[in-house]
Order: sequence, then C-alpha cells, then structure tokens
Amino acid sequence: AESLLAFLLLLVGGMFSASTLPPGPLEKVFQYIDLHQDEFVQTLKEWVAVESDSVQPVPRLRRELLRMVGLAADRLRGLGARVASVDAGFQQLSDGQTLPIPPILLAELGSDPKKPTVCFYGHLDVQPARQEDGWLTDPYTLTEVDGKLYGRGTTDNKGPVLAWINAVSAFKALDEDLPVNIKFLIEGMEESGSLALEELVRKEKSGFFSSVDCIVISDNLWISRRKPALIYGTRGNSYFTVEVKCRDQDFHSGTFGGILNEPMADLVALLGSLVDASGRILVPGIYGHVAPVTEEEKRVYEAIDLDVEEYRNSSQVKKFLFDTKEELLMHLWRYPSLSIHGIEGAFHEPGAKTVIPGRVIGKFSIRLVPHMDMSVVETQVKQHLEYIFSKRNSSNQMTVSMALGLHPWIANISDHQYLAAKRAIKTVFGTEPDMIRDGSTIPIAKILQDTTQKSVIMLPLGAVDDGEHSQNEKINRWNYIEGSKLFAAFFLEMAKLHS
Amino acid sequence: AESLLAFLLLLVGGMFSASTLPPGPLEKVFQYIDLHQDEFVQTLKEWVAVESDSVQPVPRLRRELLRMVGLAADRLRGLGARVASVDAGFQQLSDGQTLPIPPILLAELGSDPKKPTVCFYGHLDVQPARQEDGWLTDPYTLTEVDGKLYGRGTTDNKGPVLAWINAVSAFKALDEDLPVNIKFLIEGMEESGSLALEELVRKEKSGFFSSVDCIVISDNLWISRRKPALIYGTRGNSYFTVEVKCRDQDFHSGTFGGILNEPMADLVALLGSLVDASGRILVPGIYGHVAPVTEEEKRVYEAIDLDVEEYRNSSQVKKFLFDTKEELLMHLWRYPSLSIHGIEGAFHEPGAKTVIPGRVIGKFSIRLVPHMDMSVVETQVKQHLEYIFSKRNSSNQMTVSMALGLHPWIANISDHQYLAAKRAIKTVFGTEPDMIRDGSTIPIAKILQDTTQKSVIMLPLGAVDDGEHSQNEKINRWNYIEGSKLFAAFFLEMAKLHS
Repeated sequence: AESLLAFLLLLVGGMFSASTLPPGPLEKVFQYIDLHQDEFVQTLKEWVAVESDSVQPVPRLRRELLRMVGLAADRLRGLGARVASVDAGFQQLSDGQTLPIPPILLAELGSDPKKPTVCFYGHLDVQPARQEDGWLTDPYTLTEVDGKLYGRGTTDNKGPVLAWINAVSAFKALDEDLPVNIKFLIEGMEESGSLALEELVRKEKSGFFSSVDCIVISDNLWISRRKPALIYGTRGNSYFTVEVKCRDQDFHSGTFGGILNEPMADLVALLGSLVDASGRILVPGIYGHVAPVTEEEKRVYEAIDLDVEEYRNSSQVKKFLFDTKEELLMHLWRYPSLSIHGIEGAFHEPGAKTVIPGRVIGKFSIRLVPHMDMSVVETQVKQHLEYIFSKRNSSNQMTVSMALGLHPWIANISDHQYLAAKRAIKTVFGTEPDMIRDGSTIPIAKILQDTTQKSVIMLPLGAVDDGEHSQNEKINRWNYIEGSKLFAAFFLEMAKLHS
Repeated sequence: AESLLAFLLLLVGGMFSASTLPPGPLEKVFQYIDLHQDEFVQTLKEWVAVESDSVQPVPRLRRELLRMVGLAADRLRGLGARVASVDAGFQQLSDGQTLPIPPILLAELGSDPKKPTVCFYGHLDVQPARQEDGWLTDPYTLTEVDGKLYGRGTTDNKGPVLAWINAVSAFKALDEDLPVNIKFLIEGMEESGSLALEELVRKEKSGFFSSVDCIVISDNLWISRRKPALIYGTRGNSYFTVEVKCRDQDFHSGTFGGILNEPMADLVALLGSLVDASGRILVPGIYGHVAPVTEEEKRVYEAIDLDVEEYRNSSQVKKFLFDTKEELLMHLWRYPSLSIHGIEGAFHEPGAKTVIPGRVIGKFSIRLVPHMDMSVVETQVKQHLEYIFSKRNSSNQMTVSMALGLHPWIANISDHQYLAAKRAIKTVFGTEPDMIRDGSTIPIAKILQDTTQKSVIMLPLGAVDDGEHSQNEKINRWNYIEGSKLFAAFFLEMAKLHS
C-alpha cells in the first residue's frame, strides 16, 4: 500500500511539475527525490520526534535541543560535509539559572573556486506545543493526513532544512557533481531571539562567510496554498513606550477622582493622537521618507495570486481597511503601520477595580519600510507626543522611549539569486513565483546582510495555511518534496548564472 | 511609669477637651473613660491580635474571623446586651471551595419606649496585612509609639466599635442610666463586600430596625489630624465597560498591521472622548442633574479646615487641577468625576510584544453626586460612545455595559442625629466639626438608609493620617479615648433632642 501511495503521490506531484522534465543531471535528481520521498518523510519524522523547544527554559527540553543539533550534525557529516559545531556559551535566565545555548553548526561541502557558494541558513528549534492546546495529533509524532504532514517544526523550520539536505543528498547519491559549493549555518535558538548568532556571524565574516555568494533563508511561507513565492523585503519595527507618571503609587478614584490630571487620561489622549480611524499615522512627517510607489512595483502586486475574500474569511475579519488586493498588499508590505499594543501599569484584570493608576506606560510600534530612517522616526514620534502632551497642560511627567529598533530589509530582485530562484521555480512548478514581502520583521535577514555584506534571499517552501507557531502545524508532502527539487534546481541555476 | 503615662495622657486629653466639663452624669463618664483608658487600649490590643482578615479566602483566617465575632459577642453580653448571632450562610469561592460567612451580630441594650434608640453599625474584619509589606511593627500586635496605636484594624474598624462599647460600658460601670436604647449591627465581611448583610437588614426591617431612630456609622476618617468631622454625603459610582472586538484571537502586528481597524485604536479614541484635560466630563448632558451649588453650601466648604499645600504634599502630587480649598472639595465631593481604570485584553506586561489585541475592554467609572440619575447617566454614556464609535466607521463591534451602579448618599444635616453629634463634638472637643463628605462610595450607608428607611449618620473618630487599608494603620490614643467620650456625649444629646 505504501508503494502504491508513493506512486500516486508521484503522479500528483508530477501533475504540478513542469510537463517536461529538464534534461541532464536535474532530471535524474528529480526522479531520485520522487522515488525516495518516503525516506525523506521518515527523516523528517525522526527530526520532529525530538522536542527541540528553545522557548521553555527547562533542562529536559534543552537536552532535547542539543540532541537535535547533534542529529543534524551527523546528517551533514553523512553528506560528506565538514561540520564545525561552534560552542555558543550559556543562556542566563532571569531566575539566575543557566542553560547551555546549543552549538551553532557551520558546515561546508565543496570549495571549488570555479563554483558559486550558496549558504543555507536554518534553525532546528521549535515553538512549544502541547496536544491539549488543540492539536488533533501528537505534535511530536509526524502524522500524515491527506498529504499533510502534521507535527511541530514540520514547516518551521525542520522541513525546509531537510529539503535543502535532501537536494544535496540526491546529487551525492547519484554521484552527480554538485553545481555549487554548499555551506550551512544552522542554529538552535531562533525561536528565542537567535542568541549568540550575530556575534558568531560577525566573527566569521572574513572566515566562513568570505567565500559565500548568497545566503538562502527558507523560514517563511508563500502567500498562497499552491503558488510558490519569493520574498524580497520585510518591514522593520520601532517599538515605543510612553510613560505618564503622576506618582508611583496608585490612587483610589473615590478619594482623588476629580482633582487630578489622571495619567490614564493623558495617556489615552497621547495614544489617540497617533493614528486615525483609516489607519493613517498622524505623526507629522512620518511618510516623508517612504519610497514612492513605482509603476513596476504596482505590476508586482497585480501579478500576485491573492483571493481577497478567502484571505478575509480565513483571517476571521469582517472587513479590512481596504478592498483591493493591491491596496491590502501595499499596506501590509510597503507602507508603515502603527499598532497600539497595550498599557502597563493600569488595571488589566477581569472585574471592576476603582483605581486611578499613578503611573502608566503605553506601548505602540511602527512597522518601518524603505527608506524610513529609524532615528528620524524616533525624533518625529517624540516631538509629536511632546507637542500633544504640552497642549494638555498636564502636571504629570511624560517620558517617550524607543525600546527597540529593527531596520526594514529589502533585496534587489535583479540580483543573481532572485533570477536563479525564479528560474528554478519555473522549472519545478511551471509558473512564475508571487514576488512578495513579509510585513513582519525578520531580523536575521538584515543581520546576515549587514554583517556579512552578502546577498540574502528568502526562498520559502511552505503554503500559507501551514500554521507555523500554531496548533496543527504542518507541511504538505507536496511542498516538502517539490521544495527539495526546487533547491536542487536552484543550485543549477546559480551555477549557470555564475559561469 | 504606666500610671504616670496615664496621668500625662489624661492631662493632654484634657487640653483638647472643653475647658469645663459638663455637670452631671457625663462628667463622671468622662472621668471614668480617662481613668480606664489603659483597659480600653488593652481590649483593643486583644482584638487587634485576632487576624480577622476577610479578604484572603483561607480557612485559617476565616476561623480567626469567626473567633473575633465570638469575642465581640461575649463583650456585648458582658455589657448586659441581648445578642443574636445570626447565621449568614456560606461564601462560594470561584474555585468551588466554600467558606462560612461569619454570623452577623444583632445586639440590644435597653428598650425604654421613652428613650430614642440609636443603632451602631460596625465591622470586625480587616484588610490583609503582612509585616514584610512595609509595616514597622507587627500588624497584629498593637504597638503604641508617641500616642499612636499601630495595628491592623485599629482605625478600621475595631477601634471605633470598641469606642462605642467603651462609652456604653462607662455608663454601666458607673451604674448611670443609659440615656438611649442601644443597638448594635456588627458584621465580619465589610472588607469583602458585606456579604449577606443587605439580605439580613431587609429581613429585619420590621423587626430589629423598627424601633431604631438612627444608625451611626463610624467607618471613615476626619479630613484633619486634630479637628473632628461629620460626614453627610458620599458619592455613588457607575462603572462602565466598553468592549471593542474584531475577533477573539489576537493578531500579529507584522502580519496584519496596516489593514485592520485595530480594536485598540478604536478603544483609545472612545476612552479619549470621555474627559478633557481639565477633568471635565465630555459626555453630553452629564452635568444636567447635578445639584446647583447654594450659598449655604459654599459656606460649609469655606469653614472646613484644610491646608491645601499640606494636603498636596502628603498626596505626593505635584499639582492638583484646582488651587483653592473650595474648588478641590467641591470636585471631590459634589461634582461627578470620571476615571479611566485600565484595559483588559491588551498587552499589559513589561517588555515589548508586537500584538494587535483582537478584543479589548476599556474600564472607566463615573462618581455620581446628587441628584444624578443612574439610569440617565447610563443612557448618556452609551449614546455618547455609540456616537463617537459611529463617526469612526469602524468594522469592529462595540458593546458598552454598566457593570456596577451604586447611588450617591446624602443626609439632611438638620436631622436630629447631626444636631446631636455637633453638640457632642462641641462638648468633647470644644469646636464645631468639619462638615464633610466622602468622595468614595460607601454602599452600606445608602443600603441601610434605603432598606430601613431610618436616618443614617457618619460619625468618624479617626484622623486623616490613620492609613486605613495601608501599611502602619493606626488610631491615635487620643482619638480613641476622646471618641469614646464623644459617643457618650452623643447618647445624651440624642436623648435631649428626643424629649
């Protein structure tokens, strides 16, 4: 039954592949991948079975995470790679406890100066998952239902890491020459802020990374269930706190209500001055540096496959601020947005408490886009809030701080790695990719690009409904297997462009 | 040394009493109280030693509370009172656990139809207190320092309950005829919402309360350290929740920021529409029913002893909304105020979380004053928020509810009990009282007045700096002892006015 299933899936996979397979080594590689897909799924199953949760800081899980890194190192060595397992020190927890940070793997396979070198970044750690949170299957037992491989980490990020390994292993198994030199940068703390990674990358700039031509990240999703995508930008984020203080202690609203400049009234007025009902940011000058929309860019949005109604329904939102696909995508990707996250220091529990909070901290952030300058944004926000506050003539103290600043990232889509990825997608899926951005901030892309001065590409494999970080996370078998082929095709296209 | 101290305190006490003691039985009663003050302090010490915390729902504390009620019942029986210890059933906790509600004491002493009957309301339970919260002494060991009796419950409310008992006991010990019939309504759940009290009062309207002429509550503080006060009004409270919902789950601000009517933006706009920077409530019509200020009333505020600078300093507030004593008092007592308490459902913890809350609930309340109508206020607030929300054209759902409504209370200060109390204060302290209100809501006054249809008076004994509910709660020995005399004098004045 299993081989029949494999055969049927091969047929289905073939239906979505280009009708004619390319000649030469890639054809054999694709066939190999199709025929060995059950092995690849089995390896993914073994990896998913390791509860490599980096988020919950408990020794048992940290041991699992170290075991996971060890498994991956063994797998890479099995490919013939030289693997350095770089000690990353310890994580200090707030309770004084200490946990080891899993070593970061730096692996390399081939060093032919005539070939380009592509480096794959991936991570082996996962978000926490418990079956009682709403999983229909055990999150750490990979379970296939209707071609969907359910399990924690299947799409984020064990599946994509293995797809890259699968591609390399197909060349190896067939004794085909690898068209590129391969490097791996594999960490185990991505879900916990990539501790120790930036330091290592900086240290290895002139070492490990010096020969790299581009870095591939496959840690996002398509915007569709069936159509592949390339990601060429992510928004940054400036996270602000605005504190309004009368005194440190709270007041009782019976005893003091009526004679105070209440900090909450000030804060609500300040937060209310930031964004209007249509989502437009009201901080003067904030749109001044936003890159103007070009005609070419508009065509990119038009070409994207997005059913607005389906997207709205799956988001469980009655109505978006915009009706057209183009407006929605531009406001998610290429315009800044401002969100108010909450208030610290006020009454937040259920029930009715008659407190006048004495000191409250509002939190909001602005998603930054090219070519906004973070320090200009900081000044604009501070000046705006100071102006609004001064108009209130309040006797309270206001303090605005930018708590966190992460730059936006944008790639040049005419770069080699984007051309290569587009051609590889055309080869494997017979279609042009959706050229998309991610509205979120993915610091690793910007960090890798800035630190190594190398080009970065985000080449996702997973479908929009994969549910990374959610219950019932999955990767489709089809995405996993075709994704392995995609990486193989990408190697070849990179080599072609290089020569 | 102790008798010398008693003598000195007697002298000090005398300095603040009227220069000539009244002739007849009251003179003897006052002398008795002065001479037995150490005994009275000793009894207070025994009562404070019982950790009768009704707030923390744990069996050990509930047993202490029941023991406290038993001690008080014994003390009342010792005075010769008939004491009914009325079973009050059980308290259901949210975790399914059940704790006994301490019995409510209904006691009576004398039933001479020619005498008026005054009923004292008091409570034996206390707020939680732990030395490590900042107490300089053990909260449950009454400790005297510089004439201040420190300990949990000294001023709230064990001291005042005992002062009333002391007054009665002085008459009894001297074998003097009590000028009034005395009743006691003593509960043990005041700090936990006076569970079961209203039901009992309603049941006893035509029984225990039928012969009562007035009810005395001594559960507040003066507005000064040295000058006595009478309280003739308390503000009510309408507590509102306004929920804005997009969907039940939160969103990620990277993935959705820019295309949503964010519930927090709506809520901040709604809350920001309620009150201006000068503290004026912006809900149309809200001031329509507020009683106009009379010339007589103005004179009451002028006569009150309040050092604005000292009050501001002790409140640790840089600046109040108003500069004059009269404006401050009117805005605390006789004008409504609106306070925003907080938001449920938003991010409230320290740190930086990039969440777009999907559903948030704002909480605010309006302190009500005569003659505001609670249901009119409810309608005004709802209509106002609906108008503001409709102008935003948001696709979210808004729901406004009045979660809690407590009427304001005001007494007629020409009533017998106020005249009697004023004269008693003149006799004991040689001064007119500050005629004050309380900006807080004290539901028991309104409940007793409405349910029994009897007059209520608030006759506080404690000084403004007693720190009820706080660390280092205290009652001054002077207040406690002179307060006992005050109650004795009050009995006599009530009898005079009755005849």
